[in-house]
Amino acid sequence: MGKRNLEVCFSPAIFNRFENHEAIVVIIDVLRATSAICTAFANGAASLIPVAEIYEAKEYKEKGYLVAAERDGYVLDFADFGNSPFNFTREKVEGKTIVYSTTNGTKIIDLSSSAYKTVIGAFLNISSLTQWLINQDRDVILFCAGWKDKFNLEDTICAGAIAERLLESNHFMTICDSAFAATDLWTLAKKNPLEYIEKAAQRSRLRDKGLDDCIEFCFASDFTDKIPVIKNGILVNNIL
Amino acid sequence: MGKRNLEVCFSPAIFNRFENHEAIVVIIDVLRATSAICTAFANGAASLIPVAEIYEAKEYKEKGYLVAAERDGYVLDFADFGNSPFNFTREKVEGKTIVYSTTNGTKIIDLSSSAYKTVIGAFLNISSLTQWLINQDRDVILFCAGWKDKFNLEDTICAGAIAERLLESNHFMTICDSAFAATDLWTLAKKNPLEYIEKAAQRSRLRDKGLDDCIEFCFASDFTDKIPVIKNGILVNNIL
Repeated sequence: MGKRNLEVCFSPAIFNRFENHEAIVVIIDVLRATSAICTAFANGAASLIPVAEIYEAKEYKEKGYLVAAERDGYVLDFADFGNSPFNFTREKVEGKTIVYSTTNGTKIIDLSSSAYKTVIGAFLNISSLTQWLINQDRDVILFCAGWKDKFNLEDTICAGAIAERLLESNHFMTICDSAFAATDLWTLAKKNPLEYIEKAAQRSRLRDKGLDDCIEFCFASDFTDKIPVIKNGILVNNIL
Repeated sequence: MGKRNLEVCFSPAIFNRFENHEAIVVIIDVLRATSAICTAFANGAASLIPVAEIYEAKEYKEKGYLVAAERDGYVLDFADFGNSPFNFTREKVEGKTIVYSTTNGTKIIDLSSSAYKTVIGAFLNISSLTQWLINQDRDVILFCAGWKDKFNLEDTICAGAIAERLLESNHFMTICDSAFAATDLWTLAKKNPLEYIEKAAQRSRLRDKGLDDCIEFCFASDFTDKIPVIKNGILVNNIL
């Protein structure tokens, strides 16, 4: 195999500039969507249906689905629980299909739907994910979810941590400035990611809402070996 | 004065997310547009008219204007010279109005037209620019031009260098993840910016076209104290 191309996209607003339909896309939204999704599958969830609108989540609830839904940090009254990874316990999710309300997430899934394959990345599955990526003969685009189209630090350092491993494997090369920036920022952050992320805007937003109990967990590596993959807009268990 | 807000925007595609019409916007396009513009004013240019389309540049040429125009690194046949800072010598530009062909540049100028004021930033005018920004009682948005809407390293480290000085002045604060990333990358780059920028994609593009003779110049600080400012879509000399 020749060396494969690695790119990093910092924002959904520029993903259309990464025109490589043969690539594997890794969606990264460390605080908290992709960390929650990895947790759900680690605890035995059967599948996860991302929905953009509250009324859709409500319709699924009426049909008997388990629904995770919050807006601005508050659990919606009809939902079973909110979007924290800690809600996706084995008791609640094992064998179940869960509806997950996420406006930004569904937009990102739509944007990446023309890719060869789209998978879910987080610190929680980093070793399994990177090893799987190394084993494929495909270019890779690490797609940071960001915040309202803006760059964010937590997704960037996770992309940098993945990029570092892929580049060190010698199976990948990059000429992408965002990939260099992500690995450089990871170099600064990796001694103490939790300390580094203290300045991140999302860190402050979660603290202000009392939703920051899961931060340490979201930056822990290798909680699971699952690699959730998107098939026809639905997240299903482990690609392997 | 209270502390003013500092933000960094990494791409024209997300500038609409920075909604602060009372802010001063600093456009940064180190390789090579804003470096060339600073050089033109340092050498006595009277004003500079940015135009998006080649036919517009040609029309101005027919009216007798001095025209800088290139596409993909090649000087257009009707133009007086290309877009390298080295073309804007005192002999050529002193007292003159120059038409400067730039598709990305005019888009950025349009995007920032609702700001309180829009000025031109580069390493070439960094001390004068930062001191002026410190003296205003205004929020600041550092607007990196990027490359085809993508993040780039050279504009980011220049934004980081400006951000570092503004934050150290104690007149500014930030909660912007892009500002933290830019200053962190500048911290890595500042010992030897030329060496750091070796990996940048634009560095390679300019080298491939034999247009990289100006790189060292573009990373030199304080060639001029001019701060070009945009008035009604035209760049004019020194705001002061």
